[in-house]
Amino acid sequence: MESDVLVQNTLELESLLAASRALVEVELNNLLPPSGAAPEKVHQAIRWSVFAGGKRFRPALLLATGQAFGAQTEQLIRTACAFEMIHTYSLIHDDLPAMDDDDLRRGRPTCHVRFDEATAILAGDALQTLAFQTIANDNRLDPSIRIALISELTRAAATPEGMVAGQALDMEAEARQVSGAQVEEIHRLKTGALIVGAARCGALIGAADEHELDAISRYGAYLGLLFQITDDLLDVTASATDLGKTPGKDVQSKKATYPALYGIEEAREKAVKAHRLACEALEQIDRPTEILHRIVDFILHRTG
Amino acid sequence: MESDVLVQNTLELESLLAASRALVEVELNNLLPPSGAAPEKVHQAIRWSVFAGGKRFRPALLLATGQAFGAQTEQLIRTACAFEMIHTYSLIHDDLPAMDDDDLRRGRPTCHVRFDEATAILAGDALQTLAFQTIANDNRLDPSIRIALISELTRAAATPEGMVAGQALDMEAEARQVSGAQVEEIHRLKTGALIVGAARCGALIGAADEHELDAISRYGAYLGLLFQITDDLLDVTASATDLGKTPGKDVQSKKATYPALYGIEEAREKAVKAHRLACEALEQIDRPTEILHRIVDFILHRTG
Repeated sequence: MESDVLVQNTLELESLLAASRALVEVELNNLLPPSGAAPEKVHQAIRWSVFAGGKRFRPALLLATGQAFGAQTEQLIRTACAFEMIHTYSLIHDDLPAMDDDDLRRGRPTCHVRFDEATAILAGDALQTLAFQTIANDNRLDPSIRIALISELTRAAATPEGMVAGQALDMEAEARQVSGAQVEEIHRLKTGALIVGAARCGALIGAADEHELDAISRYGAYLGLLFQITDDLLDVTASATDLGKTPGKDVQSKKATYPALYGIEEAREKAVKAHRLACEALEQIDRPTEILHRIVDFILHRTG
Repeated sequence: MESDVLVQNTLELESLLAASRALVEVELNNLLPPSGAAPEKVHQAIRWSVFAGGKRFRPALLLATGQAFGAQTEQLIRTACAFEMIHTYSLIHDDLPAMDDDDLRRGRPTCHVRFDEATAILAGDALQTLAFQTIANDNRLDPSIRIALISELTRAAATPEGMVAGQALDMEAEARQVSGAQVEEIHRLKTGALIVGAARCGALIGAADEHELDAISRYGAYLGLLFQITDDLLDVTASATDLGKTPGKDVQSKKATYPALYGIEEAREKAVKAHRLACEALEQIDRPTEILHRIVDFILHRTG
């Protein structure tokens, strides 16, 4: 791809992501308990973490995938918000002192620093419940679709096939020598599962068939891998301003990362390969997947 | 009620509760990830807390209510287990150092003491997800029923109408003067919501009509109140052996309790009144509710 085309496409995608972010934030604001209602501290903590300026990548992916399969935005938006709630609950709990012990997230104090540990635990717990409630109560979708979506989201978030398993394996791996295959498995569960789930849920709402769902799962898996490799690379190469968190943190805490395992050059090659495989998965789908292509391009070239 | 009849009924109910407990534990064992599968520590922690000898009161109530409305055990058992998973996740998180800081639960070390804090947080998180997964994947029930059950369970577990709100208000109230109305509100949310939810879900699976659901909600609400008052009374009067936890703990931590607010005699009167109102709610239902009557009798007279 020529570089001016890339720049043009990136600009278009960025404005599309900004539009979907705005949409998701309006809906999240409607769905979450008001901060003035009791128990106020927990509701404030939920909103503090949900409205911390996240990129809303998982909702954007769900919306884009659903739209590629012909679903309407109003059929997709609640489930998109549910994925963001699950993602945010996991960030709140991962940041806790007993877990990764992070004070800063997206350039602001983390939930337990701004409030307190008990409130952060409860805010995360509540956000998880609210995610499933959001889908269960979405009367724009048939009950059988809602059940399929909840089933997908639970698999992506739980153990042994999802996010909690990934976080647990990640903690077990800290300060221990791990292989490339183990790092890949940790990230497949910790980050990949929810990304695959978001893409699959978009496709499910768009009534994708089994063959299409398989292709979307492969697309999501390589996108998730790409997302993690570029995240690790940014941790080594970017500045704190770009990241909104402390760079070099992974190295300090002896987290297993792609650059640590393979060096920066080989990690970059792995990113390029994941990008190619994600694009190949999209070739299997006879739908307008242009935006999904641009999303992988965007993640390959991202700077923050 | 004459005392020998009470003893006879209590014995019958105890054997019925033991039977439903055994059934629930077999099903929980099938539903939970095996402790030998990775990530092992989290799976072991989940099983440590789930199989800690709980009374399985919420599942028993759900089964009994469902049976009163003509539902089959196999239609009820998975949802009953989902309620126990939510209850257990809440105990694991409430016991954490940042929350109630309890080392002992049901006579055994709490999850974070036996394992570690990070594992306990993740075990609770995973149990919550698995609860919703259990209902979503229960193909013995129509999707529309499953959605109604998940909606009920999320309302009972979340904020502002459920368990997390109750725990948050409880923490805010610690070491502060609170009124009787505030204590009642805390318990209505923290303990009552899940008990009401269990009774309602049993009735929903049994296809109860709106009038019956209303009556069951009132029954559940007074049963929950009765449960909490007798729990508080036992904390003052029972021995550690009977309780499986440290008695007097509530007083030490300045928790707002019924005996502390009203004295033991008046708290007992409140228990008797809640029992009567629960029985009156049952009178509104033209179904075989004998077991539901015995459950309130049992809770009024319980010793552990």
